[in-house]
Amino acid sequence: MSQIAVFSGTAHPTLAQAICRKLGVPLLPTRIKRFSNDCIEVQLQSNCREQDVFIIQPLVRPVQDNLLELLLMLDAARGASAARITAVIPHYAYARSDKKDGPRISIGARLVADLLVTAGASRVLTMTLHSPQVHGFFGVPVDHLHALRELSDYFAQYDLTDSVVVSPDLGNAKNAAAFARKLDLPVAAAAKQRLSDKEVEISALIGDVRGRHAIVLDDEIVSGGSVIELLSCLRAHDVKSVRVACTHGIFAWQALRHLSSQDDVVEIVCTDTVPIPEAGGHPKLRVLSIAPALAEAMRRINNGDSVSKLFYPE
Amino acid sequence: MSQIAVFSGTAHPTLAQAICRKLGVPLLPTRIKRFSNDCIEVQLQSNCREQDVFIIQPLVRPVQDNLLELLLMLDAARGASAARITAVIPHYAYARSDKKDGPRISIGARLVADLLVTAGASRVLTMTLHSPQVHGFFGVPVDHLHALRELSDYFAQYDLTDSVVVSPDLGNAKNAAAFARKLDLPVAAAAKQRLSDKEVEISALIGDVRGRHAIVLDDEIVSGGSVIELLSCLRAHDVKSVRVACTHGIFAWQALRHLSSQDDVVEIVCTDTVPIPEAGGHPKLRVLSIAPALAEAMRRINNGDSVSKLFYPE
Amino acid sequence: MSQIAVFSGTAHPTLAQAICRKLGVPLLPTRIKRFSNDCIEVQLQSNCREQDVFIIQPLVRPVQDNLLELLLMLDAARGASAARITAVIPHYAYARSDKKDGPRISIGARLVADLLVTAGASRVLTMTLHSPQVHGFFGVPVDHLHALRELSDYFAQYDLTDSVVVSPDLGNAKNAAAFARKLDLPVAAAAKQRLSDKEVEISALIGDVRGRHAIVLDDEIVSGGSVIELLSCLRAHDVKSVRVACTHGIFAWQALRHLSSQDDVVEIVCTDTVPIPEAGGHPKLRVLSIAPALAEAMRRINNGDSVSKLFYPE
Amino acid sequence: MSQIAVFSGTAHPTLAQAICRKLGVPLLPTRIKRFSNDCIEVQLQSNCREQDVFIIQPLVRPVQDNLLELLLMLDAARGASAARITAVIPHYAYARSDKKDGPRISIGARLVADLLVTAGASRVLTMTLHSPQVHGFFGVPVDHLHALRELSDYFAQYDLTDSVVVSPDLGNAKNAAAFARKLDLPVAAAAKQRLSDKEVEISALIGDVRGRHAIVLDDEIVSGGSVIELLSCLRAHDVKSVRVACTHGIFAWQALRHLSSQDDVVEIVCTDTVPIPEAGGHPKLRVLSIAPALAEAMRRINNGDSVSKLFYPE
Amino acid sequence: MSQIAVFSGTAHPTLAQAICRKLGVPLLPTRIKRFSNDCIEVQLQSNCREQDVFIIQPLVRPVQDNLLELLLMLDAARGASAARITAVIPHYAYARSDKKDGPRISIGARLVADLLVTAGASRVLTMTLHSPQVHGFFGVPVDHLHALRELSDYFAQYDLTDSVVVSPDLGNAKNAAAFARKLDLPVAAAAKQRLSDKEVEISALIGDVRGRHAIVLDDEIVSGGSVIELLSCLRAHDVKSVRVACTHGIFAWQALRHLSSQDDVVEIVCTDTVPIPEAGGHPKLRVLSIAPALAEAMRRINNGDSVSKLFYPE
Amino acid sequence: MSQIAVFSGTAHPTLAQAICRKLGVPLLPTRIKRFSNDCIEVQLQSNCREQDVFIIQPLVRPVQDNLLELLLMLDAARGASAARITAVIPHYAYARSDKKDGPRISIGARLVADLLVTAGASRVLTMTLHSPQVHGFFGVPVDHLHALRELSDYFAQYDLTDSVVVSPDLGNAKNAAAFARKLDLPVAAAAKQRLSDKEVEISALIGDVRGRHAIVLDDEIVSGGSVIELLSCLRAHDVKSVRVACTHGIFAWQALRHLSSQDDVVEIVCTDTVPIPEAGGHPKLRVLSIAPALAEAMRRINNGDSVSKLFYPE
Repeated sequence: MSQIAVFSGTAHPTLAQAICRKLGVPLLPTRIKRFSNDCIEVQLQSNCREQDVFIIQPLVRPVQDNLLELLLMLDAARGASAARITAVIPHYAYARSDKKDGPRISIGARLVADLLVTAGASRVLTMTLHSPQVHGFFGVPVDHLHALRELSDYFAQYDLTDSVVVSPDLGNAKNAAAFARKLDLPVAAAAKQRLSDKEVEISALIGDVRGRHAIVLDDEIVSGGSVIELLSCLRAHDVKSVRVACTHGIFAWQALRHLSSQDDVVEIVCTDTVPIPEAGGHPKLRVLSIAPALAEAMRRINNGDSVSKLFYPE
Repeated sequence: MSQIAVFSGTAHPTLAQAICRKLGVPLLPTRIKRFSNDCIEVQLQSNCREQDVFIIQPLVRPVQDNLLELLLMLDAARGASAARITAVIPHYAYARSDKKDGPRISIGARLVADLLVTAGASRVLTMTLHSPQVHGFFGVPVDHLHALRELSDYFAQYDLTDSVVVSPDLGNAKNAAAFARKLDLPVAAAAKQRLSDKEVEISALIGDVRGRHAIVLDDEIVSGGSVIELLSCLRAHDVKSVRVACTHGIFAWQALRHLSSQDDVVEIVCTDTVPIPEAGGHPKLRVLSIAPALAEAMRRINNGDSVSKLFYPE
Repeated sequence: MSQIAVFSGTAHPTLAQAICRKLGVPLLPTRIKRFSNDCIEVQLQSNCREQDVFIIQPLVRPVQDNLLELLLMLDAARGASAARITAVIPHYAYARSDKKDGPRISIGARLVADLLVTAGASRVLTMTLHSPQVHGFFGVPVDHLHALRELSDYFAQYDLTDSVVVSPDLGNAKNAAAFARKLDLPVAAAAKQRLSDKEVEISALIGDVRGRHAIVLDDEIVSGGSVIELLSCLRAHDVKSVRVACTHGIFAWQALRHLSSQDDVVEIVCTDTVPIPEAGGHPKLRVLSIAPALAEAMRRINNGDSVSKLFYPE
Repeated sequence: MSQIAVFSGTAHPTLAQAICRKLGVPLLPTRIKRFSNDCIEVQLQSNCREQDVFIIQPLVRPVQDNLLELLLMLDAARGASAARITAVIPHYAYARSDKKDGPRISIGARLVADLLVTAGASRVLTMTLHSPQVHGFFGVPVDHLHALRELSDYFAQYDLTDSVVVSPDLGNAKNAAAFARKLDLPVAAAAKQRLSDKEVEISALIGDVRGRHAIVLDDEIVSGGSVIELLSCLRAHDVKSVRVACTHGIFAWQALRHLSSQDDVVEIVCTDTVPIPEAGGHPKLRVLSIAPALAEAMRRINNGDSVSKLFYPE
Repeated sequence: MSQIAVFSGTAHPTLAQAICRKLGVPLLPTRIKRFSNDCIEVQLQSNCREQDVFIIQPLVRPVQDNLLELLLMLDAARGASAARITAVIPHYAYARSDKKDGPRISIGARLVADLLVTAGASRVLTMTLHSPQVHGFFGVPVDHLHALRELSDYFAQYDLTDSVVVSPDLGNAKNAAAFARKLDLPVAAAAKQRLSDKEVEISALIGDVRGRHAIVLDDEIVSGGSVIELLSCLRAHDVKSVRVACTHGIFAWQALRHLSSQDDVVEIVCTDTVPIPEAGGHPKLRVLSIAPALAEAMRRINNGDSVSKLFYPE
Repeated sequence: MSQIAVFSGTAHPTLAQAICRKLGVPLLPTRIKRFSNDCIEVQLQSNCREQDVFIIQPLVRPVQDNLLELLLMLDAARGASAARITAVIPHYAYARSDKKDGPRISIGARLVADLLVTAGASRVLTMTLHSPQVHGFFGVPVDHLHALRELSDYFAQYDLTDSVVVSPDLGNAKNAAAFARKLDLPVAAAAKQRLSDKEVEISALIGDVRGRHAIVLDDEIVSGGSVIELLSCLRAHDVKSVRVACTHGIFAWQALRHLSSQDDVVEIVCTDTVPIPEAGGHPKLRVLSIAPALAEAMRRINNGDSVSKLFYPE
């Protein structure tokens, strides 16, 4: 395939720079201008004709602005005769709107997928989607990475005797099991049944956690509510300590501060798929870099090698 | 809207006739011809120009033949200048292929949705999809009915003292809870975690079933494996008797005979979304007619009334 | 055509209510929810099956949020089986991005037009687009209103002896001439040549303004910069007083305060295509309601009458 | 172009293997699974990212199953980021449904062409279509081979003195004439007018066959009915012997047994575009391999060489 | 359906007027302007919002100009919010380019069909296509009329004792047979095999014509070459007189003069699907009006009645 | 990218040959056949499979025939498996129909853009479009050249003391300013306000021209009317001499003769984007070759280099 050309929107430039360093290519300049009427105009400031263009933009808050910026960049790249355009979306926030659970309700994950293709995306690279069905919403190829390898490599440094991996719900249990296999640990799962949007009730904890050190694995932490709820359940089972691990550390509404203040939470580990501004001030937080994995996936996409080996490992 | 014109493929003509009787319209004739080279040709044998056409065809075995037949009928209706074409698919078998759980794997539910639209469907009416995300795979409006009302009306005839509704897995628990509310019964659920395609393991039973009469509610029964497995668990909790209820009674591989031979299974209740050829010979089987619900939905679609009131009741 | 169903996004609900009062129909409720991860979900909370749906949403700041909200509402209406969906966009901010005046630059007006159609708009109703070519960017029918009638009716109340209509640039001169004809006044125009984005230079003033009362007519006022510049030119020609008129009163960056503080500016007249929060406190500002014109256009669209008679008058 | 990757459905694996041997590439493995509800799932079990994928599947009975399998494989290849996907369909059974000869009748050849493109085919390679107009039904490039060279090479081994090529109808006469030119033989044709689907009547035999050895050339033999009818006509003209040649040997309804039992039929020659299970037991049948021609066409498609030189020879 | 609105391009206004008289509706005015740079601009000069628009334009010479005019009118009607747009194309000249009989050759019939749909045609009404497969090239509904009824009603005035219907080739024989059945006459057909574009050779005449009066029926007469050739064959069979009948009287290259000068050609009958400027001066020519049939088809399309009854009669 | 393959329609073969000489590639043969019914058929007579095809055809009179020819060639190239197809349209006549300035009026520039893409164009190379918004009408990449460099290089040969560049209207003033900068000359512009289609009135001349030699720069000269009008204005300012320069020398209605007969018009300079048959006989006319610029753009498109450097110079 042709030469790689990498551009970044304003959502997460430090991740884009880290990826480019790994790839050994420059992060090409983009001019993003906001008019007085609040409209955005973008200009890719480097020739990308017949090149293999990657545009890096996680869909994080402000989600709507970042989405429009991404769409305009895709459109500009298409107009500039890119040979292929990959939208690199480390965090796809709209993945949660994936079903019609009321009449006349929008399915945002499907709509945004359509918009990306309309604007010119010829493929998508993303990480840890909230539900695997979202994959089917796209009419273009999707490479879907997980951060299990990065997280398990990190935890392998510890003495994990008497530890157990805990999934906060059954939907995530397959990932938790794979993660546990990598660390040679047992696995447990809470059987959470969400009865309404407001109240979340944990009905049961399946698997043996009593007296162990728990590693709680989730896909993303937004408000931290479900982890907090799980904590009280774990305490009832005399869990000795808790480490929390996730791919997407959104940490809205002071979630980070709230989680850190729990005495039995020893450590919170996430990756940098989204920017974490308050990261500096939290001694319990550890942010792993996902740039090497994304850079490797982009390199394989450019070479035409299999990406699936990265995420369906042995 | 214009006049209703109803056609049926060969998958389930008795359901189509029952629907037409309810609607008070004739089932219009269709000629379906199979050439010596195994190709199919269909001809709608009645004028349907500018009419509101409904084509009734559940996707049951032989699934591929029935799908092709449906596609050809949609195409013929479009060519015959139908004003609108609704594919009435009481059972959408491909709904189970809804995610990419391996590399280079087909997502049949999405592909078949695309094919239906390509062939001319302007809307779809279906029942009890295996997962709600499948809704989003269609680019045209979908009306998605459930059979909860039909099933609960039936069970209301019984003395339900000391009964409990049981869902064989957590994914179905919301429906089971709604069903239980209609009958004013408690609800329980098995927390099933499918570790591989071959072995299914029930890890826990959430809710109190001991000494009660169980009504097991599932979306469909194919081999009956998960119900059989649940039975041994229910017996371990001293359940007194079991009634099984579902929307789609597929009953492959002698499932009906196998389930009926269990002594504590008192009754098996399903609807006629799919044809049940061996229905006659099983004294424990009770088939409820779904034709009135589908006819009512078709009447509302034709009138432009809300269908969602049928399936998001009070 | 079928029954009208009107919904409004959050951009300008008071305009939507005024339109509905004129039409004698209720403004139907919409639930717009913002998740903790900044994603939006909308639910049209009233049945609109087979109805003639209008969704009112000017693209004003925050433009990106309002656009996404509009797209999600269009998508929800399509999924809810609306017979026809008209996006009512009184102000289409992206109209200014209408050409490629540098390499690899986005043409936002075209992209947003594509997005609206992708999301389900079957027609568009808008007002006073920045350039008439934008019309051609849409693949669906567009009705394009002007506010000349509303503005001229207002000015007709004054004694207009010794008045002259002034267009700040030649591109707008046709509208200014039509406006002057309605008031039986002479017309003049500045021959502005925009040399770069930053500096705007007026090179000449064509037509006789000396000693007259000027009515400056523009399509929209954003920063007010070009009007301010025109003022110094008009003063050099001994203009006695100035009234400013426009369709879209965006008034960014304290433009309203700045314009009002000019002594010779007697009055500023605009319409309510966009919300003007600070309207209350400015004695020189007069906001005309555009709701009757939009309501009449919607009534005609619903009836299948000609809308063009509204905007190509006599 | 990139590397060739060849997959095969279940319709005709021995042909696929023969093609791969000729190309010197492996036939890559495919997992095809049929669920208990009769749905099919396919998984291409080898990486084909950015490769030039060919999927071999003649549309033979069971036609509907084989078509669905092909569609799912195309879809899986697209999702797996194939650079280009060619559907290799040695026999396109739906080609016979190529016109609307009654009201509201389906045109299967057009519909199936649309389905293949919807599912992801970027080009098609096929052989001896029933009518040349079918070519125009595809929106993607089609390479259309004939087996004339293979058949004429075979007959060139015989002493062809006093032989004549006979076409069973005028529609096929151009091919018969080209075939006769290759063998330097005269040509004759029956002027068949098909009055209805049931009765076929031969009205005339144009050209001189009396006392000669006939080589009957047709595009395909299904029931063998038209050849049998031609035989009685040829006997009336004292034809000495008959050899039958065709591209597609479908041989439904014991056609092979029936034809072979005719004493004056000396030999039946076809190619292996479709599997011929009963081939072994018929001493009069000779099956020529079409694998070299298809392999050569695939090699040329991959190289970007002209395929038309293969089928518009000299 | 809504009100009929009929417009005509410049190809055949007298036919359009005759159709409108039959329908009892006015032919609405169209302004067609040609700029100094040879571009065409059309303006439908009457409101057609939400109406059932028909645009009448046979594709006759100058074919390219007439096609562009038709496309621009379709586009203008779509932009003017027509409810439905039917392209009425009494003669579709491009139908002859219906197959790929050389490498890299254009299939004009398919391309023009695509262009009509792109420009806004929602259905097509046409007559006597050169080959029935052309029907399948359109993605929108096509109503395909024949002029058999008009032609047979005309010939029924004569004493037809000892007459025979003759088709100049086998492809047209089905139509000739239907035509003969209406007149209760026998049928014969020439078995023409076109060996190259330049030479046309009639190989045989099937059926008994000796000593009879022949009525030659063809779909269209362009140069008249194949009829002239047939004449010499008929003379060799002592045919007493010849009447020629066809739908499309193109009559290029003095065909009319040439045919009329044959002594045994008593009469030439065609319809007015195309304009015949020299019609006045030829005593042997009789032009039947097709306007009533087209008007009736348009009335049925507007009413939603079956058009197929018009062309698949009893 | 792959090998270049250049074809030409009949509109301007000498330009195509000049381009090919510059590129050092042969102009490949095309057979263009017109049937007796006025239909066109094209055949690209050279293999172009997987090649980078360029088809050269300015849209000049007869515009409709040339457009159809171009569409058929694009279609043929796509069917012949071209890797990429660029429509090279040095003059895009339909660019003037770029807005909806009356109800129900066609926007030809948008329609023709859609037709080109439908027929298979994957990109477009054109020159000096009448308005820059036309760019946005295309859904495929457009490279848009100007002839400023060619024209300024030519004028640089003269002693330009006391010269001034004059734009006939403000819309063209940006190009005139860029042209003047290249020659280090001052710039002036007429402020033309077109009040109706019939009368054109120049209201003012901005900038100092008195006593100077004028170089009038326009995008195209059709009738020459606006230049003639400008001349009388320039004479009133005592301009000493006039040289006229433009990209597209259409010269309809004896424009060339009329302009040349003006005594103060010393020279008329244009490029060969369109054929100028009467060029030979006019001593004042100078035609510059645009072939080197188009060849260079095609070379860069083929190489994947930036074309924008050609037209947004330093």
